[in-house]
Amino acid sequence: MSTLSEKEKQNYLNQLFEFLELPSISADSRYKETMEETAKWLSNQLINSGCDSSKIYSTNGHPIVYGEKIIDESMPTILVYGHYDVQPPDPIELWTNPPFKPVIKKTDVHPDGAIFARGACDDKGQVFMHLKAFEQLIKKNKLNCNVKFMIEGEEEVGSENLESFLRENKDKLGANVILISDTGLSNLNNPTLTVGLRGLAYMELKVKGPNRDLHSGTYGGTLANPINILSDIISTLIDNKGKITIPGFYNDVIEIDKSSRDLIEEKSNFDEENFKKSLGLELVKGELGYTTLERKSIRPTLDVNGIWGGYTGEGSKTVIPSEANAKISMRLVPNQDWKKISELFKDHIKNITPKSVSIEVLTHHGGNPYVTPENFKGYKSAINAYRDSFGKDPIPQKDGGSIPIVPMFENILGIKTVLMGFGLDSDAIHSPNENFGIKNFFIGIDTIQNFYKYFGN
Amino acid sequence: MSTLSEKEKQNYLNQLFEFLELPSISADSRYKETMEETAKWLSNQLINSGCDSSKIYSTNGHPIVYGEKIIDESMPTILVYGHYDVQPPDPIELWTNPPFKPVIKKTDVHPDGAIFARGACDDKGQVFMHLKAFEQLIKKNKLNCNVKFMIEGEEEVGSENLESFLRENKDKLGANVILISDTGLSNLNNPTLTVGLRGLAYMELKVKGPNRDLHSGTYGGTLANPINILSDIISTLIDNKGKITIPGFYNDVIEIDKSSRDLIEEKSNFDEENFKKSLGLELVKGELGYTTLERKSIRPTLDVNGIWGGYTGEGSKTVIPSEANAKISMRLVPNQDWKKISELFKDHIKNITPKSVSIEVLTHHGGNPYVTPENFKGYKSAINAYRDSFGKDPIPQKDGGSIPIVPMFENILGIKTVLMGFGLDSDAIHSPNENFGIKNFFIGIDTIQNFYKYFGN
Repeated sequence: MSTLSEKEKQNYLNQLFEFLELPSISADSRYKETMEETAKWLSNQLINSGCDSSKIYSTNGHPIVYGEKIIDESMPTILVYGHYDVQPPDPIELWTNPPFKPVIKKTDVHPDGAIFARGACDDKGQVFMHLKAFEQLIKKNKLNCNVKFMIEGEEEVGSENLESFLRENKDKLGANVILISDTGLSNLNNPTLTVGLRGLAYMELKVKGPNRDLHSGTYGGTLANPINILSDIISTLIDNKGKITIPGFYNDVIEIDKSSRDLIEEKSNFDEENFKKSLGLELVKGELGYTTLERKSIRPTLDVNGIWGGYTGEGSKTVIPSEANAKISMRLVPNQDWKKISELFKDHIKNITPKSVSIEVLTHHGGNPYVTPENFKGYKSAINAYRDSFGKDPIPQKDGGSIPIVPMFENILGIKTVLMGFGLDSDAIHSPNENFGIKNFFIGIDTIQNFYKYFGN
Repeated sequence: MSTLSEKEKQNYLNQLFEFLELPSISADSRYKETMEETAKWLSNQLINSGCDSSKIYSTNGHPIVYGEKIIDESMPTILVYGHYDVQPPDPIELWTNPPFKPVIKKTDVHPDGAIFARGACDDKGQVFMHLKAFEQLIKKNKLNCNVKFMIEGEEEVGSENLESFLRENKDKLGANVILISDTGLSNLNNPTLTVGLRGLAYMELKVKGPNRDLHSGTYGGTLANPINILSDIISTLIDNKGKITIPGFYNDVIEIDKSSRDLIEEKSNFDEENFKKSLGLELVKGELGYTTLERKSIRPTLDVNGIWGGYTGEGSKTVIPSEANAKISMRLVPNQDWKKISELFKDHIKNITPKSVSIEVLTHHGGNPYVTPENFKGYKSAINAYRDSFGKDPIPQKDGGSIPIVPMFENILGIKTVLMGFGLDSDAIHSPNENFGIKNFFIGIDTIQNFYKYFGN
């Protein structure tokens, strides 16, 4: 199936393992040096793969790695974006192998084997497909586009320094399409192509009560317990119809008409029974009036991503804590604006918090939703590339996740993005035992080469 | 004021510091050996203070230290109970000195200085007063009672192995009164005597959703998020009148008539403005129809003592966690039974948990409420002892905290308990910067000696 030789395959896997062994956790400040080491490793790889030049750009956070090969200024240019940072591996005790010691294991989903490591799919494995597709094209003397690589180290923490980098290097980054592999497809037999992304607004709450932790016997019943209050607040954010209760939250949502919704459902190969089975769930749950596929793609949502307060250790401690905290994020759909939604959230939380406690609301980061236009050459080239590699047309599908920088690219650079993802739902990105199918990795390398063929033509 | 010499005072403080330096944290299994070391240290101290014999009893958990001095079988016998285990010091970063390196510091409340250390008041400092009062009586040849000491190492984790110890050693533990210093008094000028304790039922919930942590973009909106569900559950447990919603929860509560309630309020020297000020609160909050003093003493309550789930580290992680947890405890009043309440809680939680998740409810530990009878010689001796030491009658007061073993002593040994506590509200027991006034420590040693005088008479 793959156009690679067995030797090339082994070689590429070995190199990817080196990449995965670097614990490039952007959220954790203890890994600052590792982030720099990873950037250097990647910069060397860009040169080895065939870039004429590569440069590591410092930022106020983690560095951005850039590389390019300009074959002819008059030819089309592809700008590849990806990220070399990864999510924290917590809860680490649930990993069956250490998260930064990659191993290949066969699974039901991946009978040919999958690479198990943090970042295997999100996004180191997928970034590496682009380097190797590019390397193959040069080797076969088939490179028909200029290529620019921009691989950042802060995607998992909100890409805070990317915007100023884009503004400062707008001319250098000029291109005809941005190509990103940071999403997935449904399966290798009936692939999907991501044509939309949800936006994101990520917030944090701190509820503050008494000026110190208190004994729950001596003080219990006399004052507002910050954990109880935080629970009350969270509990009111979604009503019994699954609707988010923040005033104005749905005002800008573009409602999709019933016939278009039916078409999405019909075209998809989403199987709800399989979905539940893979997650070990008896029941799905969500906004009334929408299907599970719609809930995960065309509808906005709100989830608590973390909560903590009081005594969380072994055994018991009879304490009323001084404060309680939660991380809460919302996924947004066209035409919601993440900054506006963050403000609505803040105002609402402040309005509903009782006066018996005080509250701080912090905006972590966010991004707007995005849709790839169907009449764009990049879109058509992707459809053709998938058809060549997979033997059938991919099904266009809106993805529930967010890549906040995609709408930002369009705003600042004026360039449309094509999302060519090769991960699967079962890859457990952001979870313990993240993995990426070897077959997915190699078919990705092939499909990207096909994309160049059509786009540079 | 104290009957001790300056040399004795310094000597006793030095010895207490040794006791406080042992991190005897019963809740944390890493300190198992330290618990044994502390038991040995205490056993030696009992002998040094004047016991004829001392023995360390192994249990299925941490050991119980016993010591006795029998001067005459026909004389009254006092059984002193206390505990040498302490609460975990978390959150450790809020301590101004290391919790197991005691220091003396002057404060507004304690112009003569207070001992800052975990266990300074709860309960090592107060246990140590009993050893030294006993030592003083022997030294002055005034011991007029037989004395038995029973100091356990599992009070902070529910005294799980005490019941079988009491049953197995019922004859050996025979006495006319049990004396415990593990509570407080209002202040040194107008002391209170604790004549009632609330009961306790300590529970833990685990809400389980999907079989692994999930990406909140790909899955957000399609399934029940365990943190959101846990918040919903907690939020329904107390209604908008401050009443606990568990069916049957109030059935056995003995309602106290209005005139008795007014008398409690009148006799107390509780100052709500000071209370709020000391906690940095704008508002109190609790069950409608009751005062703050009532809410903290004669009314049952429910508090979340800890909550955790999902990503709680630095920065952000867009995860839907597989599970979420909470520790929840209830304070009980006469005539509630903690085992019955625990069952009501369990049944209620299971009834209100939606089918979109599964739930586990665990009973940590508990105990029943207790009231000291006014016509008991032990009670009268305590009133007299306080009057001698403080120059005025103590105000009888019901304490909001729980010492679940007090009702157990009555059930198994048939002995009434007198609670002679010398801590203050501001001692921050169970919190960072726990402390115990030096003056409180020394007046405690005096008052206990006075108690012997009246009780053995």
